[in-house]
Amino acid sequence: MEDVTYPKGFTAWGLSAGIKKNGNPDLGVLVSEPPAQAFGALTTNAVQAAPVQYCRRVLDGGSAVSHVLVNSGNANACTGARGLTDVHAEVAALREVGSPRGEVLVSSTGVIGEYLPMEKLFSGIANLFESGAAKSPFVQAIMTTDTFEKKTQASLLVGGREVRIGGVAKGAGMIRPNMATMLCYLTTDIALERGYRPTFLDAVTKSFNSISVDGDMSTNDTCVLLANGASGIAYQNLSDIDRKAYDQALRSVMVELAKAIIRDGEGATKLITIEAVGAPDDASAQDVCRAIANSPLVKTAFFGCDANWGRVLAAAGSCGVPLETEKLALEFCGIGVMAKGAALKYDEADLTARMRSRDVSVRVDLGMGLSHWTYWTCDLSYDYVKINAAYRT
Amino acid sequence: MEDVTYPKGFTAWGLSAGIKKNGNPDLGVLVSEPPAQAFGALTTNAVQAAPVQYCRRVLDGGSAVSHVLVNSGNANACTGARGLTDVHAEVAALREVGSPRGEVLVSSTGVIGEYLPMEKLFSGIANLFESGAAKSPFVQAIMTTDTFEKKTQASLLVGGREVRIGGVAKGAGMIRPNMATMLCYLTTDIALERGYRPTFLDAVTKSFNSISVDGDMSTNDTCVLLANGASGIAYQNLSDIDRKAYDQALRSVMVELAKAIIRDGEGATKLITIEAVGAPDDASAQDVCRAIANSPLVKTAFFGCDANWGRVLAAAGSCGVPLETEKLALEFCGIGVMAKGAALKYDEADLTARMRSRDVSVRVDLGMGLSHWTYWTCDLSYDYVKINAAYRT
Repeated sequence: MEDVTYPKGFTAWGLSAGIKKNGNPDLGVLVSEPPAQAFGALTTNAVQAAPVQYCRRVLDGGSAVSHVLVNSGNANACTGARGLTDVHAEVAALREVGSPRGEVLVSSTGVIGEYLPMEKLFSGIANLFESGAAKSPFVQAIMTTDTFEKKTQASLLVGGREVRIGGVAKGAGMIRPNMATMLCYLTTDIALERGYRPTFLDAVTKSFNSISVDGDMSTNDTCVLLANGASGIAYQNLSDIDRKAYDQALRSVMVELAKAIIRDGEGATKLITIEAVGAPDDASAQDVCRAIANSPLVKTAFFGCDANWGRVLAAAGSCGVPLETEKLALEFCGIGVMAKGAALKYDEADLTARMRSRDVSVRVDLGMGLSHWTYWTCDLSYDYVKINAAYRT
Repeated sequence: MEDVTYPKGFTAWGLSAGIKKNGNPDLGVLVSEPPAQAFGALTTNAVQAAPVQYCRRVLDGGSAVSHVLVNSGNANACTGARGLTDVHAEVAALREVGSPRGEVLVSSTGVIGEYLPMEKLFSGIANLFESGAAKSPFVQAIMTTDTFEKKTQASLLVGGREVRIGGVAKGAGMIRPNMATMLCYLTTDIALERGYRPTFLDAVTKSFNSISVDGDMSTNDTCVLLANGASGIAYQNLSDIDRKAYDQALRSVMVELAKAIIRDGEGATKLITIEAVGAPDDASAQDVCRAIANSPLVKTAFFGCDANWGRVLAAAGSCGVPLETEKLALEFCGIGVMAKGAALKYDEADLTARMRSRDVSVRVDLGMGLSHWTYWTCDLSYDYVKINAAYRT
């Protein structure tokens, strides 16, 4: 399967620049020819890494982007003014050897509070454009402790012609001291105008902002979409139906990558799909989902294959949405366990068997309206504690 | 040490009514003679157990309270209209045998979604007032899986005369399906008027609402203060200094019980004190503390004795308070690890030794103002997962 290089006009590769101590690939570049209209969703954490600050300015400027430079092994976060100077130095080095025709985006993930090893970066950037140097896939260069590569591709026909979408992501990798940084790069060879931004952000909300491993938000979270128009097709010339089909395809790619991140959550044994239906509005539905997804009591119950509806209810009730107990209904893995606020009788053996699956679900009907939301999370296992606590003891 | 019976005019006891399967005490009564002015802080969860709904009405009415009836083993939550009928039946049964001179408050903790075993309750209530029946301490009757009794007492001299305060609490006990219900009963022999309510609620905010085991909020959480005036001293007649001393003594009792709950958090190996200082206002300080306290990444790092300031920063930055990275400073166990947004050099061996203590702390200076807050939480250990997941597998 290809990934960000699947749409026309995109190339991407990586190498080991020696930033990671284990010698794994840690520097990658994604190139768009022609330069692409870029869309970004960056962390809303008040503490923002230097590359995120830099990208925000580039994206706000609106100029076409030709290169994305990413390193793993060092997050360039909490590095003060020098962190930003280092980003500018990276971009300058890339401009020298890569001759970008457009703007350059920069991401970093890994250790925080340490300055970037600039000598390693400079020679790594030079090697990226050196034909003799050993190269590796771009997706590998952005990984930290991800246990598998997260990549996908999709194509669809609009007006009889093909447009393509590709994507790679990295999830909750743990390096000390660390945070669970999410990086995602999406490419497409359709032409998108700046006005597409709200549609892109809506897809981000319904994919990467609807997942949670442990509810923490990184200083470096970044999701970027590059649209270079190399297919010769422009979104603005499409029919309404084709536009919707494209939006849907893009969102599916993003949801797939988001779910891959959750499957690779630290110590995760299950992908939990949380649905809130019957909500008075989208925000309430999302709040209920998020409260359930982030409850350690709910997550440990799922690890124990326990359809513990009391915990789900307590979590849902604590998020500020004015639930009415007597209207609530709850399903685990398709089996109703509560309706109108009171327990239902159900086949416990059947439900337990379903709860042992790797893909489980909980569905809450608030009985208050017509809005709904879907959220994905993973369970909380011994291994979560081990991965996040034990590397020092 | 005595507890709720330490102040004059209070008696309390319990017994086993057979609600818990293991035969432990599960029904208790606290009696005030004369009846007491009652203050309550009840769960703000949208899903509220029947006894909580009942107590809210009694407390809103403002009449003096003479009896508090508590059972463990069954939470009478998610029991619909019948749940409330059952509470009224309990009160009626108590009125028959206990001849209360005031109102009756009722609490329940334990399994949710099951109706109260009323026959057991009726005979238990009768036995409570039967001189021949075997009695146990009140504090034991309210415990679920608490591993130790949480009780305290305090006295102070105001104008040369003694007033007393006593309290018991139960913490995050786990019964299936369950939630981590917090119950606390405070007694005092000073006379308090209804106008004392804001002071009481402020103390609740700074004690029980400033702790977190796992961030979940129960359908049954209840904190009640009974003030019966049996000391002959009225708060309203005190000097300003004595009033402050009394307020402080009451708050200390509440903080002590709150910290006991955290020490007994499921699988907890550490009591973590979280301080936010330099905040623009109290709410921001509290938000920052809560975000840090509820972060599983922070909690597992503490379990691993790891002063992981990246995680603390990421948690603080995600709560919506507009932190300015370059103003932030961070201390673990009294050792500065970050200032002005950048890493400090410190003696890692010294810090690791301090992090191995049972009592650890983290202090964040936001550099934005003069407000501060203190919060208490525990670490997230293998045993947390075990206790909350493993009883079924």
